[in-house]
Amino acid sequence: MTDATTHPFDDALALTSLEPGTYLGKTSPAYNNMVGPFGGLTAATLIRAIELHPDRHGDPISLTINFAGPITEGEFQISTRAVRTNRSNQHWYLEVSQNGEIATTATAVFGTRRETWDDDEATPPDAPAPSELEQSGFPDFIAWARNYEMRFASGALTEEASDSSTITLWVRDTPSRALDFTSLTSMADIFYPRVFQRRGTYVPAGTISLTIHYFATAEDIAAQHDSYVLAHAHARRFHRGYFDQSAELWSSDEKLIATSHQVVYYKD
Amino acid sequence: MTDATTHPFDDALALTSLEPGTYLGKTSPAYNNMVGPFGGLTAATLIRAIELHPDRHGDPISLTINFAGPITEGEFQISTRAVRTNRSNQHWYLEVSQNGEIATTATAVFGTRRETWDDDEATPPDAPAPSELEQSGFPDFIAWARNYEMRFASGALTEEASDSSTITLWVRDTPSRALDFTSLTSMADIFYPRVFQRRGTYVPAGTISLTIHYFATAEDIAAQHDSYVLAHAHARRFHRGYFDQSAELWSSDEKLIATSHQVVYYKD
Repeated sequence: MTDATTHPFDDALALTSLEPGTYLGKTSPAYNNMVGPFGGLTAATLIRAIELHPDRHGDPISLTINFAGPITEGEFQISTRAVRTNRSNQHWYLEVSQNGEIATTATAVFGTRRETWDDDEATPPDAPAPSELEQSGFPDFIAWARNYEMRFASGALTEEASDSSTITLWVRDTPSRALDFTSLTSMADIFYPRVFQRRGTYVPAGTISLTIHYFATAEDIAAQHDSYVLAHAHARRFHRGYFDQSAELWSSDEKLIATSHQVVYYKD
Repeated sequence: MTDATTHPFDDALALTSLEPGTYLGKTSPAYNNMVGPFGGLTAATLIRAIELHPDRHGDPISLTINFAGPITEGEFQISTRAVRTNRSNQHWYLEVSQNGEIATTATAVFGTRRETWDDDEATPPDAPAPSELEQSGFPDFIAWARNYEMRFASGALTEEASDSSTITLWVRDTPSRALDFTSLTSMADIFYPRVFQRRGTYVPAGTISLTIHYFATAEDIAAQHDSYVLAHAHARRFHRGYFDQSAELWSSDEKLIATSHQVVYYKD
């Protein structure tokens, strides 16, 4: 049963340990996409599975998740394996399966961080303050989007074709929730398929492979608390059934906290 | 023994099938990096292993390779597993091991392609023609770089610190070799660590995770033959021991044929 004081995102992430490294989860209707669960939630659930693992060493450095087949409503299993643990980092292989069939594969690197020469070379995209932008979102049949407060500076979902795939929005959980590595992971997949923006219409499209690189330390994420994240993405090429999307996620104090890069299948 | 008519890259990629899905390879001194083999070659060898697999379906769509530990001089084993095969794509998990220890993990997606609405949204970086640029490269102790003809438009390796991590060069194999998915994979890692360019000096640095997205079809690659590839990369942030690098590889006729995104460990 859902505790009335629990955030829906935490409900959706809930996992039960079956045996060391194997977890049982359940799809959450509140985070459904048009077909199956929101990919960002699946990615976040994998980060949570590693976080729950007693052998976990450090925080997320990178995650690649490959969407191999549909996840249907109901229970799923996550298997996690620490393939190799070094002094400063740890390499994981994960699978999500249902009824014995593998739906998702993933690799992840966790690691510790040290003081170094640092530099912020990239600059955040131009965007008005969240308070200057109207709240909008996606149509109601995209359930997961109702869990996010979105304020678009560009690229709001419309029925007009566009010459540009660039999208920039402020986003945070609603109800608000302090950022952590799982919610950051989910936000890295916050964008609707770039081909919709270019074509001004829905076409069959689905992420095949999603890679997230994490820059933020646990302290950086704690400092963000529940402030808006500035999310920015674009595609480079649509070619013979696949397009790319590269995204940046910026903290409210203009630090790059994560990037994501995905390849998306489409039919048009 | 090396056949005198074989290209050194093909020698370096050579694999022997041990049992279904398991291959034996050997490091190639000609493609050594400062420590261990050139990461681009290791990535290419994984693509070759899948290409050799009798169950292989389609061509590369994406590859993520995680460098979990050193590969030392000598033999290594590659295990490949087709985790799931769908009608239009196939998901792989791979490991490179030496003496029973896993040195590298990877996931890959192969797939078939279809006619779709297509668009080239990104544009290639500005660069003079290869004939207008001098040939240069890396110091001789970086063995692998001697197998590439490099003509830098920006970002040639110097001992001067730079405010920018952007690098743009024309590259092709030397001796020349017609491009294929393996050599394209290797070229996706052609750049020296971006922290060297920023700092104007060598510091300890190594790729942790490398993701390649393939846009080119087999026909697109055949059309390129042995012409120069325009390679372009930059970093966004250097923070607490890790930096990123995003790269684009363009064909000689200005088509985006692949991107790569990596996260790199550094000490400075």
